[in-house]
Amino acid sequence: MPPKMSDLPAKRYWEDFTPGLVIEHGPRRITREEIVGFGREFDPQPFHLSEEAARSTMLGELCASGWHSCCIVMRMSADSFVLNSSSMGAPGVDEVNWLRPIRPGDELTLRATVLSTRPSGSRPDMGFVNVQLELFNARRERVMSLKAPLMFGRRNPAGAAA
Amino acid sequence: MPPKMSDLPAKRYWEDFTPGLVIEHGPRRITREEIVGFGREFDPQPFHLSEEAARSTMLGELCASGWHSCCIVMRMSADSFVLNSSSMGAPGVDEVNWLRPIRPGDELTLRATVLSTRPSGSRPDMGFVNVQLELFNARRERVMSLKAPLMFGRRNPAGAAA
Repeated sequence: MPPKMSDLPAKRYWEDFTPGLVIEHGPRRITREEIVGFGREFDPQPFHLSEEAARSTMLGELCASGWHSCCIVMRMSADSFVLNSSSMGAPGVDEVNWLRPIRPGDELTLRATVLSTRPSGSRPDMGFVNVQLELFNARRERVMSLKAPLMFGRRNPAGAAA
Repeated sequence: MPPKMSDLPAKRYWEDFTPGLVIEHGPRRITREEIVGFGREFDPQPFHLSEEAARSTMLGELCASGWHSCCIVMRMSADSFVLNSSSMGAPGVDEVNWLRPIRPGDELTLRATVLSTRPSGSRPDMGFVNVQLELFNARRERVMSLKAPLMFGRRNPAGAAA
């Protein structure tokens, strides 16, 4: 059996994120207002602004910006496993795939899977946790996926006992 | 000499994005209010919420969420070369690197470089443009970088003359 988030201590450190760990969170509903508000601010392409403007585009319908889905993944990750941890951020993202449109009213669920971990080569108090973060809609269709190396503080820094 | 954006027609198609094309846009100032507002909504880690909360963290100072920098890149790309084109969105992002903190008041400049292009294998009316998108601060330090395959409609679809 892979480890479950509920088996973990209240504050999680690098050592707690073991390969195979799966964390699910949600659902979280995305509204038309959020989609249009984000589009107006950050991604004003017609398919993110209104149903009318979207109609003559390839997508043909109003849907959330791909970057909006990344921001929702970040927020759901924060709420489910980042804020109650020794998180130290991330140096970047390895790949992002936008797979299906996210539509007004969609109920989104996050699944975080620990792929691998490694200690930092330069910082004995830190380690990397490679995660895959996926969003699913209510039909359990995968709508987006990304992989990223997250940095966490170690409960027991390397060499601390020496 | 690489091609310049100002040499291009008013509406840009896939054929106009030739390898080596460089587009610069900005500067755009990012405010403390924007950084904190984005952090509260999407990335409520302490270093994105206030100077006080940031002080005890690895970063030690208030800075913008990495995802916020992606959203700013998107908006600056939209304003400079996406909205006046045959853009059809993107299937995802290849890699994102967050290189330096973005601080309140920073003046950000976008540089978009066309790395390569290819026609779509399945859609004769579309092609891919692989771009590197980089943000620089006023000291010309590179603060973030990403690579993505953008999709554009073709002025002359493959086989249209057949």
